[in-house]
Amino acid sequence: MILINGKPNDSISAQDRGLHYGDGVFETIAVLNGQGLCWQRHIDRLVRGCERLGINCPPELLLQEESDRLCSNVGKGVLKLIVTRGTGGRGYQPAADSDTTRIISLYDWPDYPHDYQNEGVRSCFCEARLGHNPQLAEIKHLNRLEQVILQSELASHNVPEGIALDISGHVIEGVRSNIFTVTVDTLSTPDLSQCGIAGIIRQIILENAAELGMKISVGTVTKDDLFNADEIFFCNSIIGVWPVIQLEQKQLDVGHYTNELKKMLSAMGAIVTA
Amino acid sequence: MILINGKPNDSISAQDRGLHYGDGVFETIAVLNGQGLCWQRHIDRLVRGCERLGINCPPELLLQEESDRLCSNVGKGVLKLIVTRGTGGRGYQPAADSDTTRIISLYDWPDYPHDYQNEGVRSCFCEARLGHNPQLAEIKHLNRLEQVILQSELASHNVPEGIALDISGHVIEGVRSNIFTVTVDTLSTPDLSQCGIAGIIRQIILENAAELGMKISVGTVTKDDLFNADEIFFCNSIIGVWPVIQLEQKQLDVGHYTNELKKMLSAMGAIVTA
Repeated sequence: MILINGKPNDSISAQDRGLHYGDGVFETIAVLNGQGLCWQRHIDRLVRGCERLGINCPPELLLQEESDRLCSNVGKGVLKLIVTRGTGGRGYQPAADSDTTRIISLYDWPDYPHDYQNEGVRSCFCEARLGHNPQLAEIKHLNRLEQVILQSELASHNVPEGIALDISGHVIEGVRSNIFTVTVDTLSTPDLSQCGIAGIIRQIILENAAELGMKISVGTVTKDDLFNADEIFFCNSIIGVWPVIQLEQKQLDVGHYTNELKKMLSAMGAIVTA
Repeated sequence: MILINGKPNDSISAQDRGLHYGDGVFETIAVLNGQGLCWQRHIDRLVRGCERLGINCPPELLLQEESDRLCSNVGKGVLKLIVTRGTGGRGYQPAADSDTTRIISLYDWPDYPHDYQNEGVRSCFCEARLGHNPQLAEIKHLNRLEQVILQSELASHNVPEGIALDISGHVIEGVRSNIFTVTVDTLSTPDLSQCGIAGIIRQIILENAAELGMKISVGTVTKDDLFNADEIFFCNSIIGVWPVIQLEQKQLDVGHYTNELKKMLSAMGAIVTA
């Protein structure tokens, strides 16, 4: 089921700037018992992304109302909100008065094995690299070819999630998630000022980890930092928290702090746990 | 008039990966008296772009036949070919057997003043920068947010074309064109290994400029190189050649070599001249 500008529809204009230029932003939201988890945070990020790109974001109440129509009877699902700059303008030039397109669709909950959350996943470094572009960093925009290329690699590596490095060789994120390490009692995650998506779950963890007695570091993370870490985990709004139990040849345990963070996120209603 | 997978249509699936990820490539082709100029070069680049992204490019004959249907009675127009990876796959992961979407549309010839080609244009450096991503450099893919942001700047600068620098501050291209300088008898254009689109007209110039007695240099180009140049021009398949007669505070003449190159491209049938 898809609502396009509020009407059930399964197609969009072939002139939409989302298609021609990736000129838009999106959110992927876990839905549990009719409710979008971390709804306000997702909407706030969508609004910020639109502001950065100069797109007129549709009113929050409209997005809420249309999302409710799709989700009201949903036990567990994934809601995707796309907002594009619409069909106006000429070539790359946006129209002065942009006719924003909103595309709200509901997907089945993905069938990841439950034990990824509890028993962890194997992972590896991807060959493809994230380019540097401070102007577009952190935003969840529709220019996602890098992620498509990275994700295509994972099939050959046969791991459920891979680690994306930037063109300087620094660790940035998981292919479709953020990444954290724990070393002794310090929680670290890469700075995303050059590339990467600033995830909602990442943000909640950064705001709340101190309550679990952890020091917090956001900065440069190297491959060696990962090999020297006591714990590593991926997180996003759909997978929740996936501990890493093998990185290349290195074995790790599902760590104490990773479990505590997962419990905290679950108790806050931020993630769906198995 | 738009043909989508060969059928007249003005909408595409809301699940198309071109919309969700910018997962595709495109070409913009000048049409004169029913013929797409530099047709084979455009198709070859489309094929190469698809190869780089692992997209199954539609057969050339099919693209030719469908384009002919749109262009047969056209005196002067612009043909846009888009090929996306279609609707398959799950999240970023492409389907193993991709159902490519082809979108072929015809636009009016843009009404740029004729004297841009003959008398030149004013230009300036844009504030927004092109990120570095060697993996996607040169390809005419659908991730074009950088160009949208750059083009949005031009309205405030009130110039017909601007100059895009990369995050290192080097000159890369025009916002929707390639850029060349002439200094004494050396023709220079930026290396595009980190970012930028490798234009068809740029390539034809590089292959043929030696015949006009010019030395050719492809490498790093700085802002100072532009300020020290005797001639500067933009080029692409639609605008043809636009000499730069003012760059920031610097005045330039429409140069001898620029005119010779423009005549050569026109004689080859590569560009439409006023």
